[in-house]
Amino acid sequence: MSEKKIEVADHLEILGVKGLPEIREGDDLTALFFDALEKNGLSLEDDDAIVFTSKIISKSEGRVVALSDVKTSAEAERIAEETEKDPRIAQLILNEAKEVVRVEQNIIIVETKHGFVCANAGIDESNVEEGKAVLLPEDPQSSVSRLKNEIEARSGKEVSVLTSDSFGRAFRDGVTGICVGVSGIPALLDRRGEQDRFGRIARITKEAIADEVCAAANLVMGEFSEGIPVAIVRGLRLKQPDSDIKDVLFHREADLFR
Amino acid sequence: MSEKKIEVADHLEILGVKGLPEIREGDDLTALFFDALEKNGLSLEDDDAIVFTSKIISKSEGRVVALSDVKTSAEAERIAEETEKDPRIAQLILNEAKEVVRVEQNIIIVETKHGFVCANAGIDESNVEEGKAVLLPEDPQSSVSRLKNEIEARSGKEVSVLTSDSFGRAFRDGVTGICVGVSGIPALLDRRGEQDRFGRIARITKEAIADEVCAAANLVMGEFSEGIPVAIVRGLRLKQPDSDIKDVLFHREADLFR
Repeated sequence: MSEKKIEVADHLEILGVKGLPEIREGDDLTALFFDALEKNGLSLEDDDAIVFTSKIISKSEGRVVALSDVKTSAEAERIAEETEKDPRIAQLILNEAKEVVRVEQNIIIVETKHGFVCANAGIDESNVEEGKAVLLPEDPQSSVSRLKNEIEARSGKEVSVLTSDSFGRAFRDGVTGICVGVSGIPALLDRRGEQDRFGRIARITKEAIADEVCAAANLVMGEFSEGIPVAIVRGLRLKQPDSDIKDVLFHREADLFR
Repeated sequence: MSEKKIEVADHLEILGVKGLPEIREGDDLTALFFDALEKNGLSLEDDDAIVFTSKIISKSEGRVVALSDVKTSAEAERIAEETEKDPRIAQLILNEAKEVVRVEQNIIIVETKHGFVCANAGIDESNVEEGKAVLLPEDPQSSVSRLKNEIEARSGKEVSVLTSDSFGRAFRDGVTGICVGVSGIPALLDRRGEQDRFGRIARITKEAIADEVCAAANLVMGEFSEGIPVAIVRGLRLKQPDSDIKDVLFHREADLFR
């Protein structure tokens, strides 16, 4: 009989961090985050999971493209016509894609170079100046690792850092917060080997903790003008120093939907 | 220009409600929930979103089947062989299905009679006696409406009630908490018409609030022996009296993945 048992928290808080300024390329997100914490009367605690929207990380890393600079290929123009998109957006989506999974209605579903299967390669024209588009961070794992190191050095607390985006889902309408980079807590919590209430050993359950944390954070972030691009999920007692969002991505051959 | 603006909460709490007994058919879940609240030193507040696992609702409604009572058809036996499942489980999955979407590896993906596209029709053999399986509630919308009415009558507070399950996802490994019934807060929060930080009008974003609430609740519920089958998400300021989880289900023809 296995004696594996994972302690879960029974009380969490989700704290929205308001008051960050509009982020520009080269901004020091860590410094701006601590300024905002102070304005919010918040201080960090050990085990805080800090969720940054991918958008502010992208903006700080200069992943904003002026559409007027985009040269379009024949393929981008063809897909743009099929989906009624701006050909320059279609081109950016192709640039970010490792593989085009599906082109249908007004959506282009691709696998990004990071391995995320999502609509429009996560490229977004909201909350950015007219005529510009925001790409996903180039290497969100490295972004969150860096932020984690900087935040831990400055606070003296052991924290985790995640970055979230809003993705649509197969079979269900609407978007939810989803994780595109995680450092410090598991992407997938492997619960195989634990016993249920009847002593039966769990066989298949892996819980996508990082995605649940980003979904929870999304409840305080909102999508638009609220200006809450960072949230703290407080009280999780899960640590995994070497976590990586790649743990949640299927190998292509294991993916039933491709 | 639209003046639509939805206020989101900037501070939420997620409270696990421990100490419910093993649930049997005919048990009064509302009474057991209030007993457990008292043991946990908790009382309800207006706007609390109360998430019950579908499993305890199913158990209270007698949606537990003894496998020895299941007669298998030739189709169930064929699918069982293909997926290396117990033919009686395959039969239960077929019984609960409106349509078989995909049979692959050891998974049978169906659309349930409720309209949920999920693996194995949500049928689960964990946390139940050996030789038994738990089906999803027959009409989870009616279950949560009833619980909402009972809980509001007893507490005098305006609450919402949701019921959650753990579903796998396309393109990502692991399960997350997902909503199979919601009464009192929106299933989908339609944010079209709101302005972003640059005054641009949002075009396509609908946020699957009920699924995010169930994902958040799952962080304190865990999957196994913790015995936390109910959680309260406190602080959401979203109300929709006539909400229905069907709002999140695609019409078949709008579903890119079928």
